[in-house]
Amino acid sequence: MQKSEAQSIFQQTFKYVRETAILESTMALLEWDERTGLPAHAGEHRAEQVTFLSGLVHQRKTSLPFGNWLNELSQSELMLQPNSPVGASIRGMKRDFDKNIQLPEELVKRIAHAVTVGQQVWSEAKPKNDFASFLPHLTDIVALRREEASILADGAKCRYDSLLDQYEEDARTDEVSVVFAELRERLVPLVQKLTQSKSGPDGKSIEGLFDVPKQREFSRWVAEKIGFQFPRGRLDETDHPFCTTLGPNDHRILTRYYEDSFSSGLYGTLHEAGHGMYEQGLPTEWYGLPAGSAASLGVHESQSRLWENMIGRSREFWQWCLPYAQKWFPQLADVSVESIYGDLNRVEASLIRIEADEATYNLHILLRFELERELIDGDLQCSDLPKAWSDRYESYLGIRPKNDSEGVMQDVHWAAGLIGYFPTYTLGNIFAAQLVNAASDELGDLPSMIAKGDFQPLLRWLRTKVHQHGRCQKPTELVANATGKPLSSQPFIDYLTKKLTPLYR
Amino acid sequence: MQKSEAQSIFQQTFKYVRETAILESTMALLEWDERTGLPAHAGEHRAEQVTFLSGLVHQRKTSLPFGNWLNELSQSELMLQPNSPVGASIRGMKRDFDKNIQLPEELVKRIAHAVTVGQQVWSEAKPKNDFASFLPHLTDIVALRREEASILADGAKCRYDSLLDQYEEDARTDEVSVVFAELRERLVPLVQKLTQSKSGPDGKSIEGLFDVPKQREFSRWVAEKIGFQFPRGRLDETDHPFCTTLGPNDHRILTRYYEDSFSSGLYGTLHEAGHGMYEQGLPTEWYGLPAGSAASLGVHESQSRLWENMIGRSREFWQWCLPYAQKWFPQLADVSVESIYGDLNRVEASLIRIEADEATYNLHILLRFELERELIDGDLQCSDLPKAWSDRYESYLGIRPKNDSEGVMQDVHWAAGLIGYFPTYTLGNIFAAQLVNAASDELGDLPSMIAKGDFQPLLRWLRTKVHQHGRCQKPTELVANATGKPLSSQPFIDYLTKKLTPLYR
Repeated sequence: MQKSEAQSIFQQTFKYVRETAILESTMALLEWDERTGLPAHAGEHRAEQVTFLSGLVHQRKTSLPFGNWLNELSQSELMLQPNSPVGASIRGMKRDFDKNIQLPEELVKRIAHAVTVGQQVWSEAKPKNDFASFLPHLTDIVALRREEASILADGAKCRYDSLLDQYEEDARTDEVSVVFAELRERLVPLVQKLTQSKSGPDGKSIEGLFDVPKQREFSRWVAEKIGFQFPRGRLDETDHPFCTTLGPNDHRILTRYYEDSFSSGLYGTLHEAGHGMYEQGLPTEWYGLPAGSAASLGVHESQSRLWENMIGRSREFWQWCLPYAQKWFPQLADVSVESIYGDLNRVEASLIRIEADEATYNLHILLRFELERELIDGDLQCSDLPKAWSDRYESYLGIRPKNDSEGVMQDVHWAAGLIGYFPTYTLGNIFAAQLVNAASDELGDLPSMIAKGDFQPLLRWLRTKVHQHGRCQKPTELVANATGKPLSSQPFIDYLTKKLTPLYR
Repeated sequence: MQKSEAQSIFQQTFKYVRETAILESTMALLEWDERTGLPAHAGEHRAEQVTFLSGLVHQRKTSLPFGNWLNELSQSELMLQPNSPVGASIRGMKRDFDKNIQLPEELVKRIAHAVTVGQQVWSEAKPKNDFASFLPHLTDIVALRREEASILADGAKCRYDSLLDQYEEDARTDEVSVVFAELRERLVPLVQKLTQSKSGPDGKSIEGLFDVPKQREFSRWVAEKIGFQFPRGRLDETDHPFCTTLGPNDHRILTRYYEDSFSSGLYGTLHEAGHGMYEQGLPTEWYGLPAGSAASLGVHESQSRLWENMIGRSREFWQWCLPYAQKWFPQLADVSVESIYGDLNRVEASLIRIEADEATYNLHILLRFELERELIDGDLQCSDLPKAWSDRYESYLGIRPKNDSEGVMQDVHWAAGLIGYFPTYTLGNIFAAQLVNAASDELGDLPSMIAKGDFQPLLRWLRTKVHQHGRCQKPTELVANATGKPLSSQPFIDYLTKKLTPLYR
């Protein structure tokens, strides 16, 4: 095939996948709207809309002509530079196609419908602590995802591998297990030492009530300061914070505010703004292609946790931010940087993952990873989940949830069918620590920049080293290339130890 | 063909049109979201989404198999009861198909794209009073709609007829012209008499500032009281109020609040709630079919203006509502029912149609109707519109707009491609007056019910006589059947005369 012919097929393919992306971004709006205030009785039709569109998307992603173009492109000269935007996009599309083609449209539609209804039922059942009404939906979702995993695994690997791989290219259950074991070995004693310490932050500096409209303004202001571009996005409210992309210039982040918490709304915002800034840094000219897409969920999570924790919970961040926070919240007038820094970094065994501190967070993830594997590859039944959940919290963290809404129903993920997804959170932490170390080495005095509220050098570094590459490299390669070092969990463990130990003398 | 065979084709067709309705309701969400806070830079992608989906919808609406099913159904036994939900739906679908099939998909897509971009440009140009930047888009939209009208008119009628007919089945330009002439003949002297009167309401009772968050609460409360079902809908804010249906149980109304106006937000809400309650009264089991759709825009407008004006601006409404309004707005404490009733019904020549009183409103419509006809069937150029607009306001209402944002750019309709649509507003007024008369005759003492805040009997009557019939009858037949009388503009003229004359002694 002539190069010009290949280029013309590539253009045709690009147009086609952009149209698919138009449908997918429309589905993203259906979901965003569902989670920002869908009328109580509108759920059924919304599920029909999502189901129908997901069917159209699946048809397009598995169409024969599309597959043929990808076959031709894969064997063309365009693959001579496999990590260029074009080469990497062809490889990525071919990889996705080969997976998608294995899944029957009927199954895809059933999953789309089950998770739409599942999320609706979850959001009603959670406040009522009504696991019984959620159980049949969860059972259905797990069974469908098992079925999907069986098809994709194709006998060659464990089922969980094929789910994990959807979120983190080429990640393997056995390798992830090793990383988790390593972390557990180092973190469990650290957490024990910290939580048994007699001294340490008491949380008093951020106790009390914080006016929600002011939290809203303050969070928006902070998100803008760190670099989230509001002309290309929005900040809204929902039950469970998330970030979604509705187009190359339409990135929406969502948080939730509680009057009795200074930190929930703010750190929800910082976390999601981290995701949003990654999406805003992807090359818009490749929108719809792998070159214009995020590298993986682990890399995504590295960006959110980097801004939330490594920046947003640093001493220097509060040196800069506290005087501003005091303007919005006069009750902080007498609070010192040291005390708010300490209080925002308290380590304690707790039940809600997304409220957990940086050290225990990974134990929450570990526990989910183990339960998921048992649901997908083992014998664990959904009906036994509440007990398995509670037992495991007791054994890792020494506490049991009082009810299922602070236990197994605490977040939307499983209701949304996101199984195989949790490990990416901890991978994100590991990536983030390694990235911040490399950025510090290259940028010079990063802490001073943060203390002055100058976030641009770090954001520019991330744009150059991570964001602009889209999905042109595999996640672990991307991080290794960005940092000049092979992937390791050491920087993350060092970071936690160095940060948290001085707080607990 | 056997009846059972026809029934099976009907079921297949029903499934197909419901799927089309799923896509259309998704497009409605894209539009709702665009008008409730799309990020500044997201417009281009939003236009691509709308364009792509409108292409899919058009393909479905003009597909050969669909046309074949409709042909078979049209000749089947199912047509023996032509006004039954099934019979009327077949007739309606066939009528729509025969029109849609005439329009090239390319033109439909170009229109969808032009009106999406047009609305975006309009919403930026209006506050800047920048007609020059809007002009090329308006020119494009008018040219495309002329092209569409030429195709549909097919030489047989004037172009404007074919646009009008899209909003008001079988309405004809010459007949509408007669009605408008009749109204003009009666209304112009009435308006002159009223505006030249030395006495009359002075508007003082509702002067001052009204806290916007309180307006928001109050408007929502009133909408709920008159019967808008919030479990099946939402009330939001936008530049130019509208109502949209995103599914059989998802009806969204939008208004806007100004701190210096007591009435804008409230009457925007009442108007759109009237539309919303009509949509909520359509039979959900026929959603997607003509039997589950509104009869016409004129009938739609009859419902909105009935609740906005004939109920919401009545003396009895304020007998009921004023004590509640006083709770939200203590500055109304000393206001009497008579004074607020008078002030909400002041007649004066004004520039903004949607803020106009009930009497002059129809002159605004008349003027648009004339300009539209000249754009579509005559020689009027878009570049000459601002002057033609101002001249005509001067001749009908004695005033000229100071700029284009209070003139030709005052509302979104033309930017949205809605040409042939304005006459339905005045038809709505005429329908509404006739419906209220008939409801009063049947229900007994309607004014007493309103004075007690008991809106249910009227809403139930409208549900039974109008809403539940969907599009099973032509608009004028529906109104004649509901009221037992042939259509006439007399009740509307009588209503205005009887209501307004006593206010201006």
